[in-house]
Amino acid sequence: MYTLKFERGPDRLTLLDQTLLPSRERYIELTSAEQVREAIASLRVRGAPAIGVAAAYGLCLAALRGEDVDAAARTLLSARPTAVSLALALERCRAAENAEAMVTAARGLEEEEEAACRAIGRAGLPLLAPGMGVLTVCNAGALATCGIGTALAPLYTANEMGYKLKVYCCETRPLLQGARLTAFELLRSGADVTLICDAAAAGVMAAGRAGAVFAGADRVAANGDTANKVGTLPLAICARHYNVPLYICAPRSAFDPGCADGRGIAVEERDGGEITDLWFARPAAPRGVKTFNPAFDITPARLIAAFITEAGVIWPNGGGGYGFGR
Amino acid sequence: MYTLKFERGPDRLTLLDQTLLPSRERYIELTSAEQVREAIASLRVRGAPAIGVAAAYGLCLAALRGEDVDAAARTLLSARPTAVSLALALERCRAAENAEAMVTAARGLEEEEEAACRAIGRAGLPLLAPGMGVLTVCNAGALATCGIGTALAPLYTANEMGYKLKVYCCETRPLLQGARLTAFELLRSGADVTLICDAAAAGVMAAGRAGAVFAGADRVAANGDTANKVGTLPLAICARHYNVPLYICAPRSAFDPGCADGRGIAVEERDGGEITDLWFARPAAPRGVKTFNPAFDITPARLIAAFITEAGVIWPNGGGGYGFGR
Repeated sequence: MYTLKFERGPDRLTLLDQTLLPSRERYIELTSAEQVREAIASLRVRGAPAIGVAAAYGLCLAALRGEDVDAAARTLLSARPTAVSLALALERCRAAENAEAMVTAARGLEEEEEAACRAIGRAGLPLLAPGMGVLTVCNAGALATCGIGTALAPLYTANEMGYKLKVYCCETRPLLQGARLTAFELLRSGADVTLICDAAAAGVMAAGRAGAVFAGADRVAANGDTANKVGTLPLAICARHYNVPLYICAPRSAFDPGCADGRGIAVEERDGGEITDLWFARPAAPRGVKTFNPAFDITPARLIAAFITEAGVIWPNGGGGYGFGR
Repeated sequence: MYTLKFERGPDRLTLLDQTLLPSRERYIELTSAEQVREAIASLRVRGAPAIGVAAAYGLCLAALRGEDVDAAARTLLSARPTAVSLALALERCRAAENAEAMVTAARGLEEEEEAACRAIGRAGLPLLAPGMGVLTVCNAGALATCGIGTALAPLYTANEMGYKLKVYCCETRPLLQGARLTAFELLRSGADVTLICDAAAAGVMAAGRAGAVFAGADRVAANGDTANKVGTLPLAICARHYNVPLYICAPRSAFDPGCADGRGIAVEERDGGEITDLWFARPAAPRGVKTFNPAFDITPARLIAAFITEAGVIWPNGGGGYGFGR
């Protein structure tokens, strides 16, 4: 299983279509920037590192076909206009002098992302112990990256060393990334994974069955406040209540020293149909009910035991910031 | 709209089939104890007070038809063997000397339950203020009772007085009672109701949008530890974190002085298919994944600001118990 793969002759980007998981495991071959844009916009590929690399290869496809690279970059950026990783990847590839140099740049980006995952895995390993129970939320795994994931990287690394962790995977409403993606990839890896409803995580901690919570991050402010998938905040509060450490695993690119604290992070509110209709055989709520569907929540730095990055583990010191990139 | 209604000539129990909500609002007429058993077992009627009254009328139907009352009682009890309200209701009706006396007993039970809801509503009213935001979980409303509910009773009472509360309704995975039932009945009543994913409740509190959490109870131990729908515990922990009071609304019948504390309450674990398959158009998780699906969780008494009962508001004093029924 792989998230994406770029090959030459014919030039193509092959993606695992994540919208069909876990029912169907289908790979799609993309040969144009427009097809890559559609795949990103439709969430066939998702996760900040993976969409950055996919967009980079989308730009390569345009360049290799002799198409207008600037137009292709605009097309690709329109797929997820707020995704910082996508904009950065495109910027980096556009600096290449020709199509072949652009492919080299994209491959370099992919390799860096893959190496960052492995480094996060190694950095987080000392925080785990054989047989430990671990909670995770959303999908910050292989399917979100070009490697072994961010939040899941220490878990994969530990399991490769025979730790046999007991992973509790929150289903992660409304988009069910935990049930559809994290449970899928952990099960595929042979890990001991148990799927729970999001609201059951507190009971898992109360029963002493979780020794740590591992989560990813969409954006980390300068003071350590962290935006991640909705549901991370209640896990963090419950983890503190039960003295269970919460670890945020993220590459350095997620750290934004230009953002002072969580108040500076705008939380995307998504369509209520994700709560009331998506996935269901028939509507789960009465027509006309109002909804509030934030995609993210902000976990204050004081609830985070440590940040695990490719540069090592950072222990925030009483709200004094993560001392990173400044 | 009503949850259930017993009528004579022909003798029948009419129920709103809650398995079809919110898509369809269909009433079914039951004329035998076996039909009532099926309706309870299939969750067409649910909620401790409502199934007690439904079972009482089921026994009346058997008695009015001249059938064996003891056999009918066994049939009805088999629908939900662990439901204390069902056993108590049957016990009370079996003491009647004849079928007519049994109908009188069942009507008396229904009226008591309805009065208890109104009393809980009045008792909880002083804890609310006009325009206040309130969080609730699962369905402890009219659909669970023969009246205006338990957790929702103070909300309905306040709204009748023009409070215009802003109610945040947790969808309540896996069975979605919040989305399917609470959102339905609140919307029908004209209340200002907003549906959220369970994991979004912490963010609602963080934003200062909830002045209180109102929840029901399946069972309250002597020290105040409370078993309620899974998801009540994380709400309680987050509410404490944000200094938002959590109120448990329950009739005296839910208080069990014979159970010393939460450790004495066995938590039912239900089929994992409720997480992975139920409601969905196609499976939401990979085949073969393990699940952990507790129906309830136990909220420690120290996280509960007050109990609201038909006998008034009880403020637990530092774990010293609710001083109720002893």
